[in-house]
Amino acid sequence: MAGSDNRRKRSGGRAGAATRRGSAAIEQSPWRLPINVDRPTEPLDEDGIAAIHDGAMRILEEIGIAFLNPEAIEILRKSGGCEIDGEIVRMGRDFVMEKVALAPSQFDITPRNPNHKITVGGKHLLFGNVSSPPNYWDMALGKKVPGTREMCQNLLKLTQYFNCIHFSGGYPVEPVDVHASVRHLDVLFDKLTITDKVMHAYSLGKERVEDVMEMVRIAGGLSHEEFDAKPRMYTNINSTSPLKHDYPMIDGWMRLARRGQALVVTPFTLAGAMAPVTMSGAVAQSLAEALCAVVLAQVINPGCPCVIGTFTSNVDMKSGAPAFGTPEYMRATQMTGQMARFYDLPMRSSGVCAANVPDGQAMWETSNSLWAAVQSGTHMVYHAAGWLEGGLIASPEKFIMDCEVLQQIQRYMEPATFATTPDDIALDAIKSVGNDGHFFGIQHTQDRYTTAFYQPFLSDWKNYEGWEVAGGIWTPERAHNLFLQILEEFEEPPMDIAIREELSEFVARRKKEGGAPTDY
Amino acid sequence: MAGSDNRRKRSGGRAGAATRRGSAAIEQSPWRLPINVDRPTEPLDEDGIAAIHDGAMRILEEIGIAFLNPEAIEILRKSGGCEIDGEIVRMGRDFVMEKVALAPSQFDITPRNPNHKITVGGKHLLFGNVSSPPNYWDMALGKKVPGTREMCQNLLKLTQYFNCIHFSGGYPVEPVDVHASVRHLDVLFDKLTITDKVMHAYSLGKERVEDVMEMVRIAGGLSHEEFDAKPRMYTNINSTSPLKHDYPMIDGWMRLARRGQALVVTPFTLAGAMAPVTMSGAVAQSLAEALCAVVLAQVINPGCPCVIGTFTSNVDMKSGAPAFGTPEYMRATQMTGQMARFYDLPMRSSGVCAANVPDGQAMWETSNSLWAAVQSGTHMVYHAAGWLEGGLIASPEKFIMDCEVLQQIQRYMEPATFATTPDDIALDAIKSVGNDGHFFGIQHTQDRYTTAFYQPFLSDWKNYEGWEVAGGIWTPERAHNLFLQILEEFEEPPMDIAIREELSEFVARRKKEGGAPTDY
Repeated sequence: MAGSDNRRKRSGGRAGAATRRGSAAIEQSPWRLPINVDRPTEPLDEDGIAAIHDGAMRILEEIGIAFLNPEAIEILRKSGGCEIDGEIVRMGRDFVMEKVALAPSQFDITPRNPNHKITVGGKHLLFGNVSSPPNYWDMALGKKVPGTREMCQNLLKLTQYFNCIHFSGGYPVEPVDVHASVRHLDVLFDKLTITDKVMHAYSLGKERVEDVMEMVRIAGGLSHEEFDAKPRMYTNINSTSPLKHDYPMIDGWMRLARRGQALVVTPFTLAGAMAPVTMSGAVAQSLAEALCAVVLAQVINPGCPCVIGTFTSNVDMKSGAPAFGTPEYMRATQMTGQMARFYDLPMRSSGVCAANVPDGQAMWETSNSLWAAVQSGTHMVYHAAGWLEGGLIASPEKFIMDCEVLQQIQRYMEPATFATTPDDIALDAIKSVGNDGHFFGIQHTQDRYTTAFYQPFLSDWKNYEGWEVAGGIWTPERAHNLFLQILEEFEEPPMDIAIREELSEFVARRKKEGGAPTDY
Repeated sequence: MAGSDNRRKRSGGRAGAATRRGSAAIEQSPWRLPINVDRPTEPLDEDGIAAIHDGAMRILEEIGIAFLNPEAIEILRKSGGCEIDGEIVRMGRDFVMEKVALAPSQFDITPRNPNHKITVGGKHLLFGNVSSPPNYWDMALGKKVPGTREMCQNLLKLTQYFNCIHFSGGYPVEPVDVHASVRHLDVLFDKLTITDKVMHAYSLGKERVEDVMEMVRIAGGLSHEEFDAKPRMYTNINSTSPLKHDYPMIDGWMRLARRGQALVVTPFTLAGAMAPVTMSGAVAQSLAEALCAVVLAQVINPGCPCVIGTFTSNVDMKSGAPAFGTPEYMRATQMTGQMARFYDLPMRSSGVCAANVPDGQAMWETSNSLWAAVQSGTHMVYHAAGWLEGGLIASPEKFIMDCEVLQQIQRYMEPATFATTPDDIALDAIKSVGNDGHFFGIQHTQDRYTTAFYQPFLSDWKNYEGWEVAGGIWTPERAHNLFLQILEEFEEPPMDIAIREELSEFVARRKKEGGAPTDY
């Protein structure tokens, strides 16, 4: 992230990067790929795993999944393992397991900045920003408003700024002030210039998917062959639960599969609405919907990287509204984790809440969902920062509050927190202090105190009186102030001027051609 | 909790209990003793457990613990297993392990209402209210003020009201408007009349401990023999870290040990201040300080119930202020859980935060500490509701917010959330809905929807617009409104009039005698 001659110069005669670093808004944890060292929490015993597997397989065998994409139907028909009945595809468990076994259990995705390469699978735990809320809320506005390109850009700056955010999700807020036909062009230009982390493409029609792949290729300075050689980006599709895959999502899925890019499939199986009211039934249905998409990808391009996602939660049975971060949500996530390990596939879950503002409820619901991600062995945590109102609102304050929690989870995973070498047990230090005195001044403490403990950037650890003297500022207001400081000091990551121009020209040409149809 | 002729009638010609129940402030989960069904999170391997055990044993063998209580010194001298050097007691690991093995791994405590009996140990997970803050904060005051008896009474009403609170801790706020010499008499009268849950005694001088034991005996309608026959209450003592037990705490410890009451010892080993800056060293020191108190209790009364507590956290190395709910705190709690199982002793931890007000920070820190309690296999969770500012403030809003989280943890532990019977997998339901439609109306949903999911009392699951129409109220304000409603509808649990009078007379007599000395 150090300066580069190719970096676009910002207007206004600002001081250089060194000066700005000196007044950095926060001291944050370094970029790293955290390793989830905890044994997962596993509510299911072997019989439970077998029961959910059998349920998922019987859904695929006996009920089948509707594929509203004729090309997918044809590919599955030719695969020889499916029974096709109009749009309904049924597949036997042997065929499913044979194809699913072709998907790798771990793979890398390399963005334009190779230092921000991520590894999906194994024990890795990765976080992405909030994706796709149509609305925005911040403390200054104090109300919910439709998203704009500027709001989207600001949230992308947070996505780049925070080292605990490993990949870029969908649009962090939908910029409804940009026409839908060209929105993907403008936002991808913003994403690729404001961030240098792993990119996502919406699977909403061939133009959008192809444009994004082309822009990611250009931004990486890659030939088509280099782009195809390994995962450079990913898409995430949702099934139309119950038991249906629509046309454009599967179209994008197949396009990325052909080019060996990464694929995430996340059924949105709200128990009691689009899935059974019982959590293990909702999980079984979610798995069936996800696994048949993985099968399709493996038929098209054996070995291409696939991730199964979970979005299984429950509704409020009084109102039908979705609820998130609930006890049932946590168990569904943990159960899905066990099943992902059973199928040996990487897994995605989310950092979610139903709260409308960044208050206590937002944080206990989000904490519940993030700890469930940790406990389930999730590899990609979507929406890990910035989500409110069940995904209908993006908030910069919530983004920054969530990053404080994410940094703590990263620190929690460092083996130093539970090391037991003789230096850690510290018998000599304990002896030297004895039965009177304290450990503040001794050498054992002096040698370690700067790195011994997690240092928060947003939590206020002052006592009440100190906090009051400093303005008595509650958490969301502190986050809002940091948001303004981060925007002030933000610098775009370096990009070669020629590449930037090629990107601009691509956007201009595709806009001239009309962008993408909006009848999806 | 049903009406009783003996119940004290409230003034003001209120409607009866039935009417009040009809307009209950909240629909809460029923009283129950949750079973922690999760496998604990265990950061230590066998070598790590051995290293911490060896550290704790070498502290006891080579450094020793100062006991500032001559009676305890004499008892330990006569035990034959200790080396006494003035106030310093050293004990060999064989002696320690032999005595610790006498303590039960599980026991019951029976309060005056036997329906509120608790089981400590095994897989049980119990929650207690915040204890001992000198100050109080609520949304109406909007500031930190010294605690009063009325504030204490109101927090005791919450302690009784919420079924997810299983035992009463120390004073939920210190009522500094009551003179210290008689404070224990007035507050115990309040505790024993406002609540009927398991009682706690501070070990602060013989008068306080003996008075509380006597009042618990009277409130239970028990003979001295019946009181002594099984645990009716408990105390919690803290060591004066590093490596010291003071006079009054150990005095109370011994008094309860003699009468077979329950004993909790919780060293306050802040890493970097009163303990090594390294977490496993702080845990080893905490265990040494706790285990030697358990040894003393087992020498006095073999088999009496003992619990080891952990309060190991880290300080903010910038200011020296204690921090809570940190990543290091979580790991220390989990490590202590592994060691408690190694010693086969029940364990206590806490629900804690450093935040000064009930905001987002308060809830992520509290969530971290509560999930660490769950992950560690903690049996008694102190301060599980109402704690702010590192324990210096009690808040009714925080109390109510925490109870929402506690209820969710209880629901999370219900096996229904991850059951996998054929009815749960629900293949027939999935078949009946097929590839179109939804699950709202089907019989499988109708049969289950009222109990399928956790129903919150404080979380607001309305969408933003619905929430705005309802006043746009943030979580702490909603909690404050509930607080006022609960106070309005609160009814004291029934108590026999004769017992109540005996308690009053005891308080009056002991006040006349001067209460307790205040030079402790």
